[in-house]
Amino acid sequence: MREHNDESVEFEVSVIGLGAMGTIMAQALLRQGRRVAIWNRSPGKAAALVAAGAHLCESAEAALAASPATIFVLLDNQATREVLGMPGVMQALANRTIVDYTTNAQDEGLALQSLVNRAGGHYVKGMIVAYPRNVGRRESHSIHTGDPEAFERHRALLEGLAGHTTFLPWDEALAFATVLHAHAFAAMVAFFEAVGAGVHFGLPPSKTARLMLDTSRFFVADALEEAVRRLEAQDFAGDQARLDVHAQAFAHIAGALHAQGAWTPVFDALCQAVQRAAAMGYGDQDIVAVTRLFARECDTASAAGQ
Amino acid sequence: MREHNDESVEFEVSVIGLGAMGTIMAQALLRQGRRVAIWNRSPGKAAALVAAGAHLCESAEAALAASPATIFVLLDNQATREVLGMPGVMQALANRTIVDYTTNAQDEGLALQSLVNRAGGHYVKGMIVAYPRNVGRRESHSIHTGDPEAFERHRALLEGLAGHTTFLPWDEALAFATVLHAHAFAAMVAFFEAVGAGVHFGLPPSKTARLMLDTSRFFVADALEEAVRRLEAQDFAGDQARLDVHAQAFAHIAGALHAQGAWTPVFDALCQAVQRAAAMGYGDQDIVAVTRLFARECDTASAAGQ
Repeated sequence: MREHNDESVEFEVSVIGLGAMGTIMAQALLRQGRRVAIWNRSPGKAAALVAAGAHLCESAEAALAASPATIFVLLDNQATREVLGMPGVMQALANRTIVDYTTNAQDEGLALQSLVNRAGGHYVKGMIVAYPRNVGRRESHSIHTGDPEAFERHRALLEGLAGHTTFLPWDEALAFATVLHAHAFAAMVAFFEAVGAGVHFGLPPSKTARLMLDTSRFFVADALEEAVRRLEAQDFAGDQARLDVHAQAFAHIAGALHAQGAWTPVFDALCQAVQRAAAMGYGDQDIVAVTRLFARECDTASAAGQ
Repeated sequence: MREHNDESVEFEVSVIGLGAMGTIMAQALLRQGRRVAIWNRSPGKAAALVAAGAHLCESAEAALAASPATIFVLLDNQATREVLGMPGVMQALANRTIVDYTTNAQDEGLALQSLVNRAGGHYVKGMIVAYPRNVGRRESHSIHTGDPEAFERHRALLEGLAGHTTFLPWDEALAFATVLHAHAFAAMVAFFEAVGAGVHFGLPPSKTARLMLDTSRFFVADALEEAVRRLEAQDFAGDQARLDVHAQAFAHIAGALHAQGAWTPVFDALCQAVQRAAAMGYGDQDIVAVTRLFARECDTASAAGQ
């Protein structure tokens, strides 16, 4: 708790990097009444934030000194390294926490953590599961890793950026973020594919999109809830939604799509996966059993007849 | 309204076909206090429903005569044809409505409609967007087509099977059901794929599934709402979520998945589609612009470099 008694700390949080995401994070924190210091390599980007009440620091060193926690939102790891190499920055890191939302790889993050620790500081790595428009919303989620104590110390602040946050160890955090985004983006692009396919049937995209979202919302949400329950309970019984019945329905749907000239690579890929799962003997289990196929070693899956 | 004055009508609804879905529909209607008549080719399946208050008819003819509306839930179109060919059935169709939830093709449905009309009856085709467990729930959705007046006459009854129902003309109804299910099943299988991929990173499926669903729910729901808004407004401006930025992130995610030996055909397919969209000049638009690629003619998309 040493850092909170530091006399040089005048602000609650600093933000370094004022691109789209950094700016919107600083705005969210200002709206929440936080005392926010900011710094950016090109100071022009700071004007709107200063007008909104942010304090523009003269250097990265000053921004780090100004607050117990400094949020980094830079272009890439190289940019982070450049900021850390600026005059006085390493000295300013003592008893400070960097919360780094810059996209980087695990080895880069771990190297930064070592560097910051050697300077007497703390390193938290953050990943926001939100488009800029939803930064600062209570419904949004984030994932954090790195220094668990530093994270807990600044949890309330970070929950101002995304209301729900999950802290995981390094390996888990990055792996989870990867599969989470794979799922979320697949759900999105599959929706676009289906809306686009509708055009081949003469369905206008705007009308189809609205109706499809409203009509499928509960069905999909319930199916995923049920899947989670079954995965937790290891319950793959085919009493509601057998995999082979789905495989048959999928083939029927694919046939109807292709007959209209629709190009549906995403749906085609899942058809093949589910058919393969049926061929491998999962047919009489619940559709969630296809998870087991995806969990198998790549070689096994390939050998089974890609 | 002639049918409601028919003295032979003793029940509110009949159900013909007592497989899993027919049984659960009859149960839902009984729970809602409806007077329900039932008939099945093999009468053994009726015992539980009779115990729950259903009236077991002696023939398909009697079931049709017993109620203004009869729900058909049979194995396939052939089974429907067989029931309609049973003694007395065509005569019993006068002033009766068949609501057919049996899976069939559009030409089969239209042929049944003609047949029923010639017998003085009405034909409504129904499709329930729900697994058996959610039949009878207010949150569930259904799609109906066929005779619009007969549908409206029995709308309240049918909303007992799925609280929300949409009536569309034949072409639109079947096309919409096709793309709707393509989207919904893709969202499900993509979730299974991501959970399965997590295993390759050492993430246990049960824990990953729960955390992934909770962490992604708002992100996906908001992304799809935003996509609908943009499709309605024809707003593809790349101010929040540019397509080329996604393409880059997708490639990064795919690389991480493959490096762990995960087999992710669904995610790989959407990666390729989004990269193609970027190559075709949609890169500076919102990610929703990939819908335009899917809406293009198949030949055009293929020519662009599959």
